[in-house]
Amino acid sequence: METLENKTFDELTIGDTAELIRTVTEQDILLFACLSGDNNPLHLDEEYAKSTQFGQRIAHGMFSALLVTTAVATKLPGPGTIYRGQDMKFQRPIFIGDTITAKLELTEKKKRGNLIKISCTMTNQRDEVVFSGVSTAIAPTEKIKIKASPLPKLSFEAEG
Amino acid sequence: METLENKTFDELTIGDTAELIRTVTEQDILLFACLSGDNNPLHLDEEYAKSTQFGQRIAHGMFSALLVTTAVATKLPGPGTIYRGQDMKFQRPIFIGDTITAKLELTEKKKRGNLIKISCTMTNQRDEVVFSGVSTAIAPTEKIKIKASPLPKLSFEAEG
Repeated sequence: METLENKTFDELTIGDTAELIRTVTEQDILLFACLSGDNNPLHLDEEYAKSTQFGQRIAHGMFSALLVTTAVATKLPGPGTIYRGQDMKFQRPIFIGDTITAKLELTEKKKRGNLIKISCTMTNQRDEVVFSGVSTAIAPTEKIKIKASPLPKLSFEAEG
Repeated sequence: METLENKTFDELTIGDTAELIRTVTEQDILLFACLSGDNNPLHLDEEYAKSTQFGQRIAHGMFSALLVTTAVATKLPGPGTIYRGQDMKFQRPIFIGDTITAKLELTEKKKRGNLIKISCTMTNQRDEVVFSGVSTAIAPTEKIKIKASPLPKLSFEAEG
């Protein structure tokens, strides 16, 4: 079983990095639509999407936010982090099949309140920046090493 | 079938509002974990969560971002909006069963580039602010009235 281990405030150093790579699938976009309730056909209907400026379906912009939050919560600094805020810019559309690399870097560390800032840039397989942002969090002060929870398997029934 | 209709840049007025209300379920949290990959037991394991400062499982902070993006993409201004960025602060944890009311308000409108800003505040059923943020977007210039796409039904298999 996967283990999650954090970096405590004292262990963190400006310049620390983490990376998360993910290829976006059609199922991801369907799931995002189900979970958020954003059923805009730009994301779900290929025919409609062809008539737009994008020429094909695109992922919901906020999909990229899922990669940042997961990288912060499981990698840098990991469990025990209190996520306080996120600024982000959606720079370019993400298409089905795109492979997104999210690179995080610790840019600030304040003893007062154990506040940290982490910058994040995401690029696609063509090295185009699709996302940039800054996370604000309270870093954990205690070392935590825990088992990740098992995730249920999902399946789709007929469209309803 | 649900219809999505936008407000064009010309139709938008400073002070326009939109609201989205949602009660957060255990399934929402499971789905968020599956989709994001954030399998931190704070969100998924009741026993572990009891040992933390929160005393119970909490929703992923970024869950609230799904409500903003959906309100912007389907209500204010709706389809045709190009979402450019989002700043947000996670003010308080969201627990399973909480009913979250997201209130959006158009606060800025710039002819140059049809740029708009929308503020969003979310409160829980105890009227505590759990989220605040500002969305930046390019408002649509053409009237769009489209059918929302049907969403597939999801089911969970045994935990894997």
